[in-house]
Amino acid sequence: MQNDRNKILVDSIKRLLRRDAASHLVKIVNKTHAADLAVVFRSLSHANQHKLLDLLENAEQKAALFSELDEDTFSDFVEGLEVDEVVEILEHMPSDDVADLIGRLPEEKSDTILERMKKEGSEEVEDLLRYDDDTAGGIMVPDFIALREDATAADAIRSLQKEHMDVEMPFYLYVVDEYGKLVGVCSLRQLVVVPSDTPLKDFMTTDMFMVKTDMDQEEVAKIVAHYDILAVPVVDEANKLVGIVTVDDVIDIIREEATEDILKMAGVGEEFVETKSVLKSIRIRLPWLFACCVGGIIASFIISSFQESLSKVAYIAAFIPVIMGMSGNVGIQSSTIVVRGLATGRLNIRDLWSVVFKELAIGFMLGIVYGLFIALVAQLQYSREALALSVALAVVCSMSLAALSGSLMPMLFARLNMDPAVATGPFVTTAIDIVSVFLYFNIAVTFLGI
Amino acid sequence: MQNDRNKILVDSIKRLLRRDAASHLVKIVNKTHAADLAVVFRSLSHANQHKLLDLLENAEQKAALFSELDEDTFSDFVEGLEVDEVVEILEHMPSDDVADLIGRLPEEKSDTILERMKKEGSEEVEDLLRYDDDTAGGIMVPDFIALREDATAADAIRSLQKEHMDVEMPFYLYVVDEYGKLVGVCSLRQLVVVPSDTPLKDFMTTDMFMVKTDMDQEEVAKIVAHYDILAVPVVDEANKLVGIVTVDDVIDIIREEATEDILKMAGVGEEFVETKSVLKSIRIRLPWLFACCVGGIIASFIISSFQESLSKVAYIAAFIPVIMGMSGNVGIQSSTIVVRGLATGRLNIRDLWSVVFKELAIGFMLGIVYGLFIALVAQLQYSREALALSVALAVVCSMSLAALSGSLMPMLFARLNMDPAVATGPFVTTAIDIVSVFLYFNIAVTFLGI
Repeated sequence: MQNDRNKILVDSIKRLLRRDAASHLVKIVNKTHAADLAVVFRSLSHANQHKLLDLLENAEQKAALFSELDEDTFSDFVEGLEVDEVVEILEHMPSDDVADLIGRLPEEKSDTILERMKKEGSEEVEDLLRYDDDTAGGIMVPDFIALREDATAADAIRSLQKEHMDVEMPFYLYVVDEYGKLVGVCSLRQLVVVPSDTPLKDFMTTDMFMVKTDMDQEEVAKIVAHYDILAVPVVDEANKLVGIVTVDDVIDIIREEATEDILKMAGVGEEFVETKSVLKSIRIRLPWLFACCVGGIIASFIISSFQESLSKVAYIAAFIPVIMGMSGNVGIQSSTIVVRGLATGRLNIRDLWSVVFKELAIGFMLGIVYGLFIALVAQLQYSREALALSVALAVVCSMSLAALSGSLMPMLFARLNMDPAVATGPFVTTAIDIVSVFLYFNIAVTFLGI
Repeated sequence: MQNDRNKILVDSIKRLLRRDAASHLVKIVNKTHAADLAVVFRSLSHANQHKLLDLLENAEQKAALFSELDEDTFSDFVEGLEVDEVVEILEHMPSDDVADLIGRLPEEKSDTILERMKKEGSEEVEDLLRYDDDTAGGIMVPDFIALREDATAADAIRSLQKEHMDVEMPFYLYVVDEYGKLVGVCSLRQLVVVPSDTPLKDFMTTDMFMVKTDMDQEEVAKIVAHYDILAVPVVDEANKLVGIVTVDDVIDIIREEATEDILKMAGVGEEFVETKSVLKSIRIRLPWLFACCVGGIIASFIISSFQESLSKVAYIAAFIPVIMGMSGNVGIQSSTIVVRGLATGRLNIRDLWSVVFKELAIGFMLGIVYGLFIALVAQLQYSREALALSVALAVVCSMSLAALSGSLMPMLFARLNMDPAVATGPFVTTAIDIVSVFLYFNIAVTFLGI
């Protein structure tokens, strides 16, 4: 439904742009939520993107649209724009969104933009750019409400009324000491329910979650999700409060990380289907297929080394696909369980051996079930016990090994602090293909005596 | 890090339980966050789960722990518990959590529990149980703050202080008319910044997001994530406000849905590695492998129908793995891009043909690159042009078809309102295996004249 609504919006804006129906467009564009407008924007040509931007009434609205854009769309679009025009819009955006967008631009471009921005804003952005993109520092918002512990609830409410109109999502108030060190937190809700002359220190919580600027964004997301909090304060090495990470950014991280894992497991790098051209897609996917290609070629060498046996008993070739397919699928099952278990925190890398042994047991038992079934088919078709036995044994061995390597490889990758999702997909399946072909031919040649 | 901390906690609680170090345990258990305690609880034996529960000081803490448990752990544990003991704990839980947990119990058990619960609570739970688990109604919290539009900001703050101490996350106040119909919303923040005698109708937002009780939870999650809101009101057919869905539940939904998609694509049903025994895992994974097994057997029939050609030119068997592997991988790339694109809303089912044609083009061009490469290897190895040509042609055709079917199948499934993730994984790869073997042998036989 959400998709349908967006599609209808995209279609009608495109139609109006073709017809140059300016007054109609102004009305639609200015009453559409920036998040929806960003979806439309992404699917327009450069010329129409410019038209759309010009239709927005003021810099605030343009800024709201820019805040919703993904980095690729932004950097493509901004190439053709005057620096001054960009700067005017960026001035109206939260500094964390500015940092995200211009962090992707070529350095000279981003330097020019930062120079022309007002000093206060550009300093905040430069501070944010110092942090890695995927750490707490890189995703935090530097705007938050911080008060001293002897301030009263009434003081806090006054400061909410006056100073902090531009703070995103102010549901927590942070309490800091004279050095800016975080000492407590109170909720907006507590603020309105206590007598107004109560000092913050009397009702603030001192036992709160906080994260360091260099914590990986996935860890931050896990904490926010695990403890059901709306924002987590970010502190520097001296525990000085420097920003907050809000739950809406956490949602984006969780979705991104899930998508990245899925794409890596499928061997598609970090492609997104709708923003890339056919050529770019090919460039991204080509290298991932290389492992599979090399694996297949190795398998072909293995098979051709059995050429003589094959010309004597040609039908052993018939079972190559089923043995490769079954072991490949079991391997993917095991590695997916492990990769997703690690990502969601339901599996721990310290449990390596118990997980791997369990998967091995599962692979072995599934191998026995399907090995017997496929052997039965082989026996009915060819009435040759030695062949049926070879097939059964090859299925059991290769499915067990597939489950073993499918679970072991991502676990080992995770232990070495490498991304377990990369170890899955093409690499695991390719390794399994080679091993299962090798095992099958050796077993068949031995049993059939050829 | 989060994982490490949990692991340490689990280990030390297990150690203390073995040593029966009650006083030490009481201290640790009662100061641990319920979300962490739930992780520990999940990994304990039944006997130790009972011990742990008894260590908690009061029903509130037990209720907090229960609220964090997943349904499987809860229903396993609760089997051995006295109904009265369960009821006492459930009485202290939010009704949406109670509904989630007892919704999974056998009907007679849940009926007994509901009968013994206090009337007010059990009615709320029964109301919630009427909604499907995965709809807005099934995930909403029935506790929210709703006021009439002529109430003032001061009235609202008073009602916050008095009545609504048990409302989860009260950052929005909803405004309803005399029939309970939702007419507006204001934020807690607005409440403290306006003069206290302002009536809500003067500053409430009337243009707000709301969802119907029967909206799919994935749609609800998309709306909350897309518009960066903290809670969305749920209304019935008459637009009467009946509950809210909060952002913390949306995070859980997004993670669950991503995990489900990943597991389905890998053909593992909805298994979670740590809660299931080896036998349960086998039962879940066995049927998913059946498609692959049948596909492999069909491929073996195809190959054996070429038995005569094979015994003449045995080495054509050598290229079965690489052709199957390459087309299988391209098919997975395409279907993953489509499934994830649909799930994140970046792809629209109305764009079916443009997406499928793009994937076909990508598959075709990747097929040309790798087809030539593999043909070159074949030529160097066997010096037989007809073989090299057959291999090249088979790679191009099967990779193009794989990309086509890999993108078309999930798109069609989605159009038919079926889960596109199920169409991926085992089914797509199995179909591709059969087609690529069939194509390769027919091409080879024609070109090699055997």
